[in-house]
Amino acid sequence: MTTLEEHRCFDGMQGFYEHASREVGLPMRFGVYVPPQAAKGPRPVLYCLAGLTCNEQTFAIKAGAQQHAARHGLVLVTPDTSPRNTGVGEADADWDFGTAAGFYLDATREPYAGRWRMESWLMRELSPLLQAQFPVRGDRAGILGHSMGGHGALTLALRHPGRFSSVSALAPICAPTEVAWGRKAFLGYLGEDADAWARHDAVRLIEGGARAPALLVDQGLEDQFLASQLRPERLEAACAASGQPLELRRHAGYDHGYFFIASFIADHIEHHARTLCA
Amino acid sequence: MTTLEEHRCFDGMQGFYEHASREVGLPMRFGVYVPPQAAKGPRPVLYCLAGLTCNEQTFAIKAGAQQHAARHGLVLVTPDTSPRNTGVGEADADWDFGTAAGFYLDATREPYAGRWRMESWLMRELSPLLQAQFPVRGDRAGILGHSMGGHGALTLALRHPGRFSSVSALAPICAPTEVAWGRKAFLGYLGEDADAWARHDAVRLIEGGARAPALLVDQGLEDQFLASQLRPERLEAACAASGQPLELRRHAGYDHGYFFIASFIADHIEHHARTLCA
Repeated sequence: MTTLEEHRCFDGMQGFYEHASREVGLPMRFGVYVPPQAAKGPRPVLYCLAGLTCNEQTFAIKAGAQQHAARHGLVLVTPDTSPRNTGVGEADADWDFGTAAGFYLDATREPYAGRWRMESWLMRELSPLLQAQFPVRGDRAGILGHSMGGHGALTLALRHPGRFSSVSALAPICAPTEVAWGRKAFLGYLGEDADAWARHDAVRLIEGGARAPALLVDQGLEDQFLASQLRPERLEAACAASGQPLELRRHAGYDHGYFFIASFIADHIEHHARTLCA
Repeated sequence: MTTLEEHRCFDGMQGFYEHASREVGLPMRFGVYVPPQAAKGPRPVLYCLAGLTCNEQTFAIKAGAQQHAARHGLVLVTPDTSPRNTGVGEADADWDFGTAAGFYLDATREPYAGRWRMESWLMRELSPLLQAQFPVRGDRAGILGHSMGGHGALTLALRHPGRFSSVSALAPICAPTEVAWGRKAFLGYLGEDADAWARHDAVRLIEGGARAPALLVDQGLEDQFLASQLRPERLEAACAASGQPLELRRHAGYDHGYFFIASFIADHIEHHARTLCA
């Protein structure tokens, strides 16, 4: 593991790191915020998954989450959103697919299979790496995400019961199999396998009986992607029909960007801390 | 004035705007955060001046100041750091001079004179524009800045007594006539006129009898530019010798970047609000 940058921040340390990923077969980057309480022992960890076009620095720079992590004693982890410099030329053609658009799954279709292994990287490689290299408790993890990262947070929690004790999302892609961003990604990464698509769709997973800890979801009502890509009403209906606890908050005037995230991140960190730091 | 972007943020509005500047002779950009309290009437304004390489969005995106401005009811203004697209080719050659390095003064040397008029733009054009277009009180203004913007905040407050009721800086260039960044800028913008240099140097101004409201200055002790470019000890000595009130706080472990700014911005907004919102 290589340290790229480290900056003192709210009496803790915001760092950015790179390691040679076994799962991806390439160097992968991630950010870690270690709160001041970690000087006395390992702390719970909160994975923060970013959206399309973002990298491991975006959430760390723009969300304003460290001040709240410092108050509660949470480690924040911000993984990059895809492999980089893969040699797959077509992966750089679009902003909503390929590079910076990994959708937090393992691709099965060429030329993405073998490199785009975001789920395995996060769940099987980054998680133990963090416990080995940082003051992180192995038994207390939460996950949140924004947009594509909200899809990631919901689906990873639903697909890996017991791994995350707390889950939340801001403006998540709730039903990717039904919207353009998700269909493009799933077709590209998974091919025309409808069952595989359903296994990475939060609404389908909940409809199929998967359960996660009580969800907190925030959504801006002036979000330019609300109707076309996000569809929180589908998540709301699936949770209501199947008894999955959900608090869905709709916020007048807010759009899809980081000024929206920053405005509500305190509530999300609080939501996770209530469980993780109890 | 053209609205470039507006985003709801902490129940207020973060916008970015452009207007045809009379002083600069080109379009100039700036950000404005309007807090929720402005719905009931004009609010005090805090100018936030950014450092080298920044633009009107940098501080608004990275500092995390809006949450505190929303609590206190302060309008935040983030001006761009120089004219852009000036046609002066050499202005784009270096990161520490020319474009994004206006040093908050009016240049007198060609080819910068006539375009690089940051002081006149801020003091004579942007200030009345804000009062005309935004819910801003004309009688209550504060100013803060980081690095080159810290130099700007200190020198504009010292050069325009009575215009700013509160002043603070993070890692400011305290004695620009004595360091490489400042000497390069002053030589380029002002020529070899030592008296002109001194009129834009906070330490020299204070030594010469200029006074500002009580200063709050924060400085990280791991700042990579501390000894070579910033020299807070020169400000400290000048203030002590001449009775200018100064609270200089040195912070172990912190560097020059926005994670440092974010860690202490709450104290700065509080410092300004105590005077501006009293």
